[in-house]
Amino acid sequence: MALIVQKFGGTSVASTDRIKSVAKRVARWKAQGHDMIVVPSAMSGETNRLIALAREISALPDPRELDVIASTGEQVTIGLLSMALKEEGVKAKSYTGAQVRVLTDDTFTKARILRIDDEKIRRDIADGYVVVVAGFQGVDENGNITTLGRGGSDTSAVALAAALKADECQIYTDVDGVYTTDPRVEPDARKLDTITFEEMLEMASLGSKVLQIRSVEFAGKYKVKLRVLSSFQNEGEGTLITVEEDRPMEQPIISGIAFNRDEAKLTILGIPDRPSVAYQLLGPIADANIDVDMIIQNVANDETADFSFTVNRGDYTRAMDILEGAVDRLGARGVLGDNRICKVSAVGVGMRSHPGIASKMFSALGREGINIKMISTSEIKISVVVDEKYLELAVRVLHKAFGLDKAE
Amino acid sequence: MALIVQKFGGTSVASTDRIKSVAKRVARWKAQGHDMIVVPSAMSGETNRLIALAREISALPDPRELDVIASTGEQVTIGLLSMALKEEGVKAKSYTGAQVRVLTDDTFTKARILRIDDEKIRRDIADGYVVVVAGFQGVDENGNITTLGRGGSDTSAVALAAALKADECQIYTDVDGVYTTDPRVEPDARKLDTITFEEMLEMASLGSKVLQIRSVEFAGKYKVKLRVLSSFQNEGEGTLITVEEDRPMEQPIISGIAFNRDEAKLTILGIPDRPSVAYQLLGPIADANIDVDMIIQNVANDETADFSFTVNRGDYTRAMDILEGAVDRLGARGVLGDNRICKVSAVGVGMRSHPGIASKMFSALGREGINIKMISTSEIKISVVVDEKYLELAVRVLHKAFGLDKAE
Repeated sequence: MALIVQKFGGTSVASTDRIKSVAKRVARWKAQGHDMIVVPSAMSGETNRLIALAREISALPDPRELDVIASTGEQVTIGLLSMALKEEGVKAKSYTGAQVRVLTDDTFTKARILRIDDEKIRRDIADGYVVVVAGFQGVDENGNITTLGRGGSDTSAVALAAALKADECQIYTDVDGVYTTDPRVEPDARKLDTITFEEMLEMASLGSKVLQIRSVEFAGKYKVKLRVLSSFQNEGEGTLITVEEDRPMEQPIISGIAFNRDEAKLTILGIPDRPSVAYQLLGPIADANIDVDMIIQNVANDETADFSFTVNRGDYTRAMDILEGAVDRLGARGVLGDNRICKVSAVGVGMRSHPGIASKMFSALGREGINIKMISTSEIKISVVVDEKYLELAVRVLHKAFGLDKAE
Repeated sequence: MALIVQKFGGTSVASTDRIKSVAKRVARWKAQGHDMIVVPSAMSGETNRLIALAREISALPDPRELDVIASTGEQVTIGLLSMALKEEGVKAKSYTGAQVRVLTDDTFTKARILRIDDEKIRRDIADGYVVVVAGFQGVDENGNITTLGRGGSDTSAVALAAALKADECQIYTDVDGVYTTDPRVEPDARKLDTITFEEMLEMASLGSKVLQIRSVEFAGKYKVKLRVLSSFQNEGEGTLITVEEDRPMEQPIISGIAFNRDEAKLTILGIPDRPSVAYQLLGPIADANIDVDMIIQNVANDETADFSFTVNRGDYTRAMDILEGAVDRLGARGVLGDNRICKVSAVGVGMRSHPGIASKMFSALGREGINIKMISTSEIKISVVVDEKYLELAVRVLHKAFGLDKAE
C-alpha cells in the first residue's frame, strides 16, 4: 500500500466521458489498497477559452483578475472528477488551491508555491477519501487566488507529492512515456524505462514537451519519484524519472536526442574586444525581455571579436533591430542573421564518464555532410546548431550513431 | 454621496460587450461620488452549461461538488467585470463568496447566508475601489463552497446591502421595473413607482419573476431599500420596493394583478368528515415532495366532506396517483382532477382598510361569465382559480376594474 499522487492533463479530462475513464482508473488503484491524491488540469481548451474572454475585455488583462478567471477551469474539473469517483463507489472530496491551501507568492499568472498545508488532505485520506486537488492554482497570504502559469498542474502534483511524502507522483498525459527522440521524426525512437532528472530537464528545455520543466526541477529537489504514463492505455510502466543513483547499473551513455526548430542566430561582426562587451551587447536584448540561448564569442584577430547568439525565432526581428541600432555605438563592423536554423542535442548523464562523445557526434554529422554552425556543451549535453533543412536527418543520424534504436 | 449595491443579472452580463456596458454604468455612478459594490450573476446560460456537465457525470450529482462547479460561473464574471472597470479607469477588485467571506450554512445548492464579513470590503471602499462580489455563492464554516440556489445573486446583493448598511440596493434586470401585471397579457399594464415588500412577495410568488422571493424577504427584514431597474436603458427610476410607511399617502387599493398558469386542481369526494383527515390526505403528498398551494374543504353533508387543493401542474400526475391510491383507505367516494386551470390574484396592501374588494372582483369576473372554481384570500391578496382559457380575459377585466390602467 502506497501513497500515490496522479496528475491528469487537459486531454485526459477533455470530456465527461474521459473524466469517467479517469475515475475508473483511480478507482482501480484505490481498490488495490493505495491512498490516492488526484490532480486534474482544466478540460482541454477551457483555459484558452477563459483567457480569450479576458482579452475581449482588455488587451492587457489585470493579472490578479486573470487568475480569478483562469483558476475556474480546474475548479470545474475537480468537481466533475469527484462526482465521477462517487459514481464508481469511491469516497471523494475536492479542494481548490485556496481550500487546501496551496500557499504561493503573489506573482499573479506565474506564482511559485511556498508551502502546502497537508492537514485536511491527511485527515481525508485517513478517512478513506480519494482527495481531488485543483492543479495550476494556489492562494497568496492575503487570500488572493493565484495561478502557477502554463503547465502548472504538473508542479502542483509534484509539490503535493513532496509535501505529503508520496511514494510516487504519476503524470498521465497523451504520450506513454519519454522517448529517445520524437517518434514523428525518428520512427525507431524507443520509450525509455528510466531517465534522470537532469536528463529530463535538458530534454524538456529542448522541446520534448512531456513535462513542465519547473515540475521536474521541483521533483529533483525534493526527491519525488516521478513517472510519466499514458492516460489512454491501461498497460505499461511509462517512464520513471529518477535520481542517477537509483538507475540500473548499465545505462546507455546517451539517453536521447532532443531538438528545437524555433531557433534563430544573430552575429555581430568585428566588435572591439574589450571587457563588458558581452554585457553592452546583451543588456538591451535582455531589457527587451528576449531570452538568449547559446552564446559564442570568437576572437577574430587581436583587437576585434565576432559574437554570436541564438534566440527564439519569434524574437528574431526585434533582436535584429536592437543589434543594428547598436552597431555604431559599439564600433562593430556589422550584423549577420539567420532564422532558418535549428538545434539538435545529445543528452545523457553517461557522457560525464565517457570522453569522445562530442567527436563521435561531429563525425556522424560530418559523414552526412551536415555543416555545424554553432556548438555548445554542458556536463550532460552537446548541442549543435545546423541548417533547418537538416533537422530530421541530423536527429536520425545521431539516434542511430548512439545506438538508441536498439533495445536497452 | 451614497453607498450603493448594484446587482446585474445573467442577461446583463451575457457577453463581454454587455459586461463593458455594465462597467460604463458603474463608472458613471462612481464618478458621481458614490461608493459602489457590484454583484454580477454568471453569464446567462453558463450555470445551465455547468449543471449539464455535472449531469453527464451523475444523474444525482453530489451537492457539495455541484456547488464547487456551479460557483465558477460567477467567479468568471467578477474577474471580467473588474477588468472592464479598470479599462474605464476605475479601481476595482473582485471577491468570491469565500474570499469576502459570505458565511452560509452547509445546505449545499440552497444554502442560507448567516453572516457577511465586511472588513475587506469596507477597507477597499475607503481606498477608493469599486468592490465586485460574486453573487449566488458563499462558504460554510468548514471552508466548503456553497451556493444559494437559483436567483441567489439577488439575495447576495441584498445581504451585502444589509451588512454594509447601503443606502440602496439596485437590481438591474431585463425589465425596467415591476408592472401592474404582465404587459404581454395586458398591454395597458403600467410600471409601478413603488410597491411594498409584502405586495412584492405576493406578486413574486404568483409568478411575476422579477426578483427572487428570498431576496425580497431579506430586504424587508433588514429594511434594505430595494430598486428594480433595467440594465438596457439609461433612464428611468425603476420600481422602488419599500416598507408601507415610506410610500406616498394616496396609494391605489390594488397594486397589481398576478397570475400563474401552471396550476392543477385535485378533489377527493365524500371523504368522512373527521379530525386529521386533512393530514391523512396531504401527508403522502408532502412526503412525495409536492408543494400544495390552495386548500379548500367543504362539508358536503353531515358526515362527509369534499376536499380540494391545487399543485404545480408538473406534479399533477404524481399527486393524482397518490390520491387514487388513498381513496379506499380513507373511505372516500372518488377523486376528480383538472389540470387546465390557472390562478389569478389581486394584490394590494390597501385592501386591509378597504372592504368590498372581493365582491368587486367576483362581480367583474361574473359580468364576463367567468366561472370561479376556487377562492383563497389573505390579508393583502384575493386569488381565484378559473378555467385556463379565461386567464387573459380575467387578468384584463380585473386590471381595468381596479383602475390599474390609469396613471397613478
